[in-house]
Amino acid sequence: MKLYTYFRSSAAYRVRIALNLKGLPYDSVPVHLARGGGEQRRPEYLAINPAGLVPALEDGGAVLTQSLAIIEYLEETHPQPALLPGDALTRARIRALAQAIACDIHPINNLRVLQYLTRELGASEEQKNTWYRHWVERGLATVEAMLAQAPRDGRFCVGDTPTLADVCLVPQVFNARRFECRTDHIPTVMRIAGACETLEAFRLAAPTRQPDAE
Amino acid sequence: MKLYTYFRSSAAYRVRIALNLKGLPYDSVPVHLARGGGEQRRPEYLAINPAGLVPALEDGGAVLTQSLAIIEYLEETHPQPALLPGDALTRARIRALAQAIACDIHPINNLRVLQYLTRELGASEEQKNTWYRHWVERGLATVEAMLAQAPRDGRFCVGDTPTLADVCLVPQVFNARRFECRTDHIPTVMRIAGACETLEAFRLAAPTRQPDAE
Repeated sequence: MKLYTYFRSSAAYRVRIALNLKGLPYDSVPVHLARGGGEQRRPEYLAINPAGLVPALEDGGAVLTQSLAIIEYLEETHPQPALLPGDALTRARIRALAQAIACDIHPINNLRVLQYLTRELGASEEQKNTWYRHWVERGLATVEAMLAQAPRDGRFCVGDTPTLADVCLVPQVFNARRFECRTDHIPTVMRIAGACETLEAFRLAAPTRQPDAE
Repeated sequence: MKLYTYFRSSAAYRVRIALNLKGLPYDSVPVHLARGGGEQRRPEYLAINPAGLVPALEDGGAVLTQSLAIIEYLEETHPQPALLPGDALTRARIRALAQAIACDIHPINNLRVLQYLTRELGASEEQKNTWYRHWVERGLATVEAMLAQAPRDGRFCVGDTPTLADVCLVPQVFNARRFECRTDHIPTVMRIAGACETLEAFRLAAPTRQPDAE
């Protein structure tokens, strides 16, 4: 498999973790989101992914896009270890936690949105960073509240093995640290992220460990 | 089942369509997003959904949140008619189309984001509407390009029965019309939305047909 990736992209980071957890080897094809106006907007890449976003995964000639769709595909084609274990309700809970991050936090802070804020609305660097922190701090507070809704019987978001929820949580916590967001209001989130980071699959997927890291 | 819904919420609209397609009866519990500072932020509702967003679905005592997670749950518990038919690659394609809308368009135009633009960044009504249209027009152009990537052999996004992709497409097209977005660049998207709207399941889920419609 071939993964179109960018070291700092948190959507690509999710797929890297999932591939590692499932023990699936892949080749990295870096797509530099900031260089030369954004390599993701070049015609060669748009032919691969019309959204002009990373990640994209090539598997046996087919190209898949959207990080959560890619991970669901990996789950269906390589079921073990399961990232969506349990019954339908448990799986719904795992997916809801994942989407509370992948739908409700991350897209609002995507690079192109931040660029629109500064270029079109004239937001200052400080206003941009305040925006970023607002959605991360508020969004992770929601995740913390969601985690408090059900008794947790393990070290991870749901249960004692990492799931799709943890796969989304860790890259978001990475971004929270990078932008110096408050984290004192989300002790459970931070404890779970710490537990994940003891695992090789998460460590090897980290931005700093990628071939295109700066 | 009991659906916490708001007539104009496009995430709730998705779940209403899915419930109708599967022939599952439900009771609507309206949560008014604009009235009294937003009923979704009241403690009673936050106890149901800590995100303070609609929809939430109650099924046999359990509460589910996040529209896509809810629909995946309905798909697992009531598999027919399938909203994610086909092999793993086909399902990945359906999910990617759904997420191109549910992750890459809708969250950026969510009510709370628009409120932040005007209240915190001082955006004018015109700037807010330009923002809205920018993400819809650009995002639906991506969906159009994604649809062009594979031969279509039916009236819907993927195949000749409505799938999760169509369930997300129609509410987004509703919003595009409401905010008078350009649609001349997305003929396939508009043709598919038209095909969906001939079906009772989609028509009955429309905002104008809801008990809380204004």
